[in-house]
Amino acid sequence: MSGYMGKLLVVDLTSGELVDEPLDANIAHDYVGGAGYAARFLYDELGPGIDPLGPENVLMFMTGPLVGTRAPSCGRHEVCAISPLTGIWGESNSGGFWGAELKFAGYDGIVVRGCSEKPVWLSIEEGKPPALHDASGLWGLDTYETQDRLRQELGDEKVRVASIGVAGENMVLYAAIMNDHGRAAGRTGMGAVMGSKKLKAIAVRGKQRVPLADKTLFSQTAKEAIRIVKDDISSQVYREMGTASFVDMSIMWGNMPNAYWSEPRFEEATNLSGVAMMETILTRPVPCYGCLVACGREVTLKETPYGVEVVDGPEYETVATLGSMLMVDDLAAVAYAGHLCNRHGLDTMSAGSAISLAYLLYERGFLGAGDTGGLPLRWGDIETAHTLLEMIARREGFGDVLAEGCQRIAARYGAEDLAVHVNGLEAAAHDPRALSGMALVYATSPRGACHMQGDMYSIDMGLTIPEVGIFPGGRFKTRGKAKVVARVQDWRTLYNSAIMCVFVNPTAPVLVRLLSAATGWSSDIVWWQRTGERIFNLKRAFNNRLGIQRGNDRLPERMLIPMSNGSRGRTPRMDMLLQEYYEERDWDWHTGKPSRERLISLGAPDIAGDLWDGA
Amino acid sequence: MSGYMGKLLVVDLTSGELVDEPLDANIAHDYVGGAGYAARFLYDELGPGIDPLGPENVLMFMTGPLVGTRAPSCGRHEVCAISPLTGIWGESNSGGFWGAELKFAGYDGIVVRGCSEKPVWLSIEEGKPPALHDASGLWGLDTYETQDRLRQELGDEKVRVASIGVAGENMVLYAAIMNDHGRAAGRTGMGAVMGSKKLKAIAVRGKQRVPLADKTLFSQTAKEAIRIVKDDISSQVYREMGTASFVDMSIMWGNMPNAYWSEPRFEEATNLSGVAMMETILTRPVPCYGCLVACGREVTLKETPYGVEVVDGPEYETVATLGSMLMVDDLAAVAYAGHLCNRHGLDTMSAGSAISLAYLLYERGFLGAGDTGGLPLRWGDIETAHTLLEMIARREGFGDVLAEGCQRIAARYGAEDLAVHVNGLEAAAHDPRALSGMALVYATSPRGACHMQGDMYSIDMGLTIPEVGIFPGGRFKTRGKAKVVARVQDWRTLYNSAIMCVFVNPTAPVLVRLLSAATGWSSDIVWWQRTGERIFNLKRAFNNRLGIQRGNDRLPERMLIPMSNGSRGRTPRMDMLLQEYYEERDWDWHTGKPSRERLISLGAPDIAGDLWDGA
Repeated sequence: MSGYMGKLLVVDLTSGELVDEPLDANIAHDYVGGAGYAARFLYDELGPGIDPLGPENVLMFMTGPLVGTRAPSCGRHEVCAISPLTGIWGESNSGGFWGAELKFAGYDGIVVRGCSEKPVWLSIEEGKPPALHDASGLWGLDTYETQDRLRQELGDEKVRVASIGVAGENMVLYAAIMNDHGRAAGRTGMGAVMGSKKLKAIAVRGKQRVPLADKTLFSQTAKEAIRIVKDDISSQVYREMGTASFVDMSIMWGNMPNAYWSEPRFEEATNLSGVAMMETILTRPVPCYGCLVACGREVTLKETPYGVEVVDGPEYETVATLGSMLMVDDLAAVAYAGHLCNRHGLDTMSAGSAISLAYLLYERGFLGAGDTGGLPLRWGDIETAHTLLEMIARREGFGDVLAEGCQRIAARYGAEDLAVHVNGLEAAAHDPRALSGMALVYATSPRGACHMQGDMYSIDMGLTIPEVGIFPGGRFKTRGKAKVVARVQDWRTLYNSAIMCVFVNPTAPVLVRLLSAATGWSSDIVWWQRTGERIFNLKRAFNNRLGIQRGNDRLPERMLIPMSNGSRGRTPRMDMLLQEYYEERDWDWHTGKPSRERLISLGAPDIAGDLWDGA
Repeated sequence: MSGYMGKLLVVDLTSGELVDEPLDANIAHDYVGGAGYAARFLYDELGPGIDPLGPENVLMFMTGPLVGTRAPSCGRHEVCAISPLTGIWGESNSGGFWGAELKFAGYDGIVVRGCSEKPVWLSIEEGKPPALHDASGLWGLDTYETQDRLRQELGDEKVRVASIGVAGENMVLYAAIMNDHGRAAGRTGMGAVMGSKKLKAIAVRGKQRVPLADKTLFSQTAKEAIRIVKDDISSQVYREMGTASFVDMSIMWGNMPNAYWSEPRFEEATNLSGVAMMETILTRPVPCYGCLVACGREVTLKETPYGVEVVDGPEYETVATLGSMLMVDDLAAVAYAGHLCNRHGLDTMSAGSAISLAYLLYERGFLGAGDTGGLPLRWGDIETAHTLLEMIARREGFGDVLAEGCQRIAARYGAEDLAVHVNGLEAAAHDPRALSGMALVYATSPRGACHMQGDMYSIDMGLTIPEVGIFPGGRFKTRGKAKVVARVQDWRTLYNSAIMCVFVNPTAPVLVRLLSAATGWSSDIVWWQRTGERIFNLKRAFNNRLGIQRGNDRLPERMLIPMSNGSRGRTPRMDMLLQEYYEERDWDWHTGKPSRERLISLGAPDIAGDLWDGA
């Protein structure tokens, strides 16, 4: 039986041409789907010197072999390109239903090339040829309005829409691509790339079944997976309290940043917790496609002056970056800030970080009211943050400065060493001083200081990831941690290629049986784990070619300053962590490149040749 | 009796015109001489937008009312301009005899404007008109050769020469101006400014007596000062062991940086101490004009392969920045590195820091052999440092990168937060984690992370500065330290205007009596202390106009990472230190400017008007 052998829609926005192209069987076999397939595809297309916001950048929307199946939480999609925020590998992963719907419409992914002269949107409806449409009437609309408008336009309530808001139109460097109300491909500015191409939205609708190599085995394994996930305590916690269930433990352990990673304690952040949300503004949990966890939140702001009633509620990352990072504990006000990000299509994490950095720079006298257009910036002031979010999305006044992200903001004011980022991506709200695994994850993630290319925050907090197990060493440990980090990264890289949500953990044997039943390929667990490793190293090679070397594997020096909070004055031993990590990965200590031998043994001799025999 | 009422030589290198101009009596009275007079003079001439290496920058060589008198250690001169390294106030102070000789030739200072088309040198000989001469035969010579050549040229062994080496010719951003063999106006790149003007050297010779308002009082007070200095234990320590007498105490207290301010211990630095020098390569102490301290060193390198015999020996700052910062403890090799800096006219401190940063970046994988032209950079390798010093001076290959200073080097490799500087000036070899007073001095000095605008290292080490007294709080103390720092800065600012060497401390009453007897002005101690404060605030205003604001008053974040050495894991409390400092100085917390009220009360209403009523 044939499994994963579908097609891509290739859109050239410069010429307006739309072409179907079969999946490359070799790429699919070695790099699966999602971010893995995209990385291999783009590796062949994109090199140094490409303007991320120019027509040469290629934007991919990818599903994978599990997407749209009955396996749990497999409705996600990946958006990939060179990031305008970081200049290196950009990828962002979104939930909802859009990914599954794209599969139902008969496509495994979309490749977007070139730039349109005027705004367009793309429709992909099963039974009709995909088509580009004039989007001048949509330009300037927020993402919710855009979704509604395209559903009306196509006359089908079940149409799923991914779109940018005004932030993407204005190429805010951390603009998101939103879909299914408040789901976001948030990080690394994929919305800015979409905006640069003048592609406002992609609407998809279909009813095809997803092809599977072994339907019986798949169906049986999917049921087993569902049972495992259902019994998992963390699924239940996520359902009840969303990802903000992390808040209280994070405060206790010094994991949740305050005041842009500076010292003051802010125990009031507990008012932003998942429990607090449940007891106050939560209306209901919101699931993505095929998900029985439903960590998504819907909340009411009826009692607030914001003029909205029910909105998509905030994640842990959002209550941290737009809450505790600003020394704000008003949950409804933070939820509204998150809503503004959703409307305008902004990554809440980078947006919150940028505003928080601006507050710090204001406090420390790097900028004054003359720079902000008269706005005083004070810790605890969420109203000003609301105003700034609007200004950022429109690149108005000081918002135009903040739209450039923390690295560039800090450089503008001569405060480079205050910015908390790795390779240009703002850190997630997990403090590596509290969890040493996150230090390595931030330092080595292919997209910068990101928490989704290895959720070591879970392992370091003592939770189990069945594929990897519990790390007995504890959250401050150095020795032995690199091995765990590498394995988590490999598995999560496979998840992001499959694509399965990283919040479900049906165990490695079950995941591999699902993949094997879907694709018809190997059922060997080690082969699949090595596929994750192969993809991880491919992304590394992609970045090496764009200038990433060993010096880039690091934390900002600010994160090596001990804190008096729950991280108890500990700081990660970067030298030892990195040394062990390089040994584990067999990366070259001088250049930061994966060794020729490792690449060859992973079945990527072509990449080895490129890295080691190139000019 | 008239005292300090001399003249300046104004040289326009563009037109070739030389004019005498009397000292401005108002400026002299309010800002004395040296860096104070220069600051007021240049404040009226130089504003934002001036290219420090262009013809608009004005370079001043200044003496002061005490220079060339019989008061102890008053032979120094100041060189001032906008710094090409930092873009703000630049000043550098040199010993030797040149300053006194300039006074003997009848001048209090030299103002150099414009740029010459071809290399020139300037002669100022008493009894002859000052003259510009073709220097094409000198271009490319080292500073020792230049001094020798001009002595021959003028046929007088007692001619004193200040000149640049090839580093200044090539506008290395931290090029020094050397005089009297190994004396250097080292910091802030005054040699690059001189090089940009194509002025190779200034030779001076004269026999005039320095005018004094009250000769009897002066002579009597000078004798008293000499007695006090002679009895001072620190004078004796400096004479025996030079400034490197600091080494052992510095190691013990964690004051001396290793491996570019990173963690590894390096107790071997004791081999670089003043005692070690005395026991090995020291031939004799070398005094400047009128100095009974003689902290200068002459050393022999006869037993080395460097092809030189007797050279000017290294200071504490040199053994630290070109020694322990490179993890080198070979004293003769470090002395030779210092000699190379002297020959080519390089600031040892910034040069050593730049090389040390490069070693760190190499170790951490920010740069590789491809960047350095094949040179591996390894801790402990002084031979490579010798090679790099030659390359820097000539801006050859990787030397051209290092010639730009630490801030720009780090930015080039995306490692901004690894550079240890304040406002562009490389920190001196005093770690503020060991001595909290140095934290404030670095953060607020008008020329960046400098140790000479307030020698809090002495006070924090428990030594007495008679003008200020012992600070009982200790080296880690926060509360109360700002007041002491401000007073030290005020007094040292007066010293640098008088000019008296900061290594002698004849007590405030005696210093003020000397100044009063020389100038005929007030004998009120408070008035003179406030004159120091007035000048300090003038330099601040100069910098405010060039963009300095409160955010600039800071340490790099790296210096807030605790160390396991003798600084015992302590770090300075910058927020509290700065708050107290701002209160003490009455600087505005929002803009970082001196308050209108303080400027007016200090007798500088014009500066107040400029700062607060300007556009």
